[in-house]
Amino acid sequence: MNDTALRPRIAGDRESAVLDGVLDVLVEVGYDKLTFDLVAARVRAGKATLYRRWPTKADLVIAAVSQVKVCPNNDADALDTGTLRGDLEALICGDAEVTELLPSVMAAIVVAIHRDEELKQSFHEQIVRPRYELLIAAFERAQQRGEIGPDADLELIAAVVPAMAMRHSAELGAGPTTEYMREVVEQIVLPACAATLHEHHEPATKGG
Amino acid sequence: MNDTALRPRIAGDRESAVLDGVLDVLVEVGYDKLTFDLVAARVRAGKATLYRRWPTKADLVIAAVSQVKVCPNNDADALDTGTLRGDLEALICGDAEVTELLPSVMAAIVVAIHRDEELKQSFHEQIVRPRYELLIAAFERAQQRGEIGPDADLELIAAVVPAMAMRHSAELGAGPTTEYMREVVEQIVLPACAATLHEHHEPATKGG
Repeated sequence: MNDTALRPRIAGDRESAVLDGVLDVLVEVGYDKLTFDLVAARVRAGKATLYRRWPTKADLVIAAVSQVKVCPNNDADALDTGTLRGDLEALICGDAEVTELLPSVMAAIVVAIHRDEELKQSFHEQIVRPRYELLIAAFERAQQRGEIGPDADLELIAAVVPAMAMRHSAELGAGPTTEYMREVVEQIVLPACAATLHEHHEPATKGG
Repeated sequence: MNDTALRPRIAGDRESAVLDGVLDVLVEVGYDKLTFDLVAARVRAGKATLYRRWPTKADLVIAAVSQVKVCPNNDADALDTGTLRGDLEALICGDAEVTELLPSVMAAIVVAIHRDEELKQSFHEQIVRPRYELLIAAFERAQQRGEIGPDADLELIAAVVPAMAMRHSAELGAGPTTEYMREVVEQIVLPACAATLHEHHEPATKGG
């Protein structure tokens, strides 16, 4: 807790402020019109400083979007609450904090993502995949604890969470609320997990 | 069954052939570069004939995409098999037939959809919504038969089907197979429906 130990944190705050500025510019002008000049002016930084840290526009934008998109609890240990419901709640609350900004950010880059293969890959590797790994790890822990049957298709069940979030954004043009994602967990994900504990799934048609 | 009665059917086949040609051009050159000239040359039709039927490029393309996207069993009565599993199977098999073509078609228009508000709306109204209505109707019938509890959130559960299909396409760049969608129904949708028949959902955490 001496001054030296604090220094990286301050640098991190500065980086974070720069990336917030990138997001502002991104939402205002869109991916295509965003330039290092515009960002440098906005955040009062030298262009050379920006280039040193983020060599390309794609790097800069993906770093900025990562800030919004990555769960605040992006430490896998912190997400290990002891139950699947608890773990998913922790992941979902992470989503809720970014709900307001995310749709406009996504709107600003989605066209470029579809057009630009490199940006698309960076987006997948640096934003989509890390989140997915936290999610699948929560399901693996649940399976080890016996909350999910040993033969369950974890990837299929886990995919419900991002799939429903993605559809909500695509259909309604707004990220899902915490409330909505909680319903997804309670009404769909947890029942699907519970069903894997029975040897034979009782079809809905026989349940009535 | 006289000649006059047959005429509209033949006209429909010709229309269908024209729209197939639109899809070919679309996949080859993308939405932006598709023109009435290109289509007219491909299908050996007069531009005026095309314009009369489809006044704008968006109309023409949406009509063509509707051909691929709308379920072959797009008659709600034909989809009423007496069980939710049967109804969903009928809807899913409809998807499978278009699996091969759909991803390349979507790739050709997705950028334009995000950029062009009118195209986006047409896409939603003429392609997304009709399918969704068939789907939600199947869930409503299931609820009336008692396969789904009276308090269930049908829209939430029904959304799992398009959500998982959409995510599969977005993540893997290929439409979902019938096999995949069948797993979605068996492992996720039907268990979620079955759970609505119990007054209190037994959380997965207490099931082990």
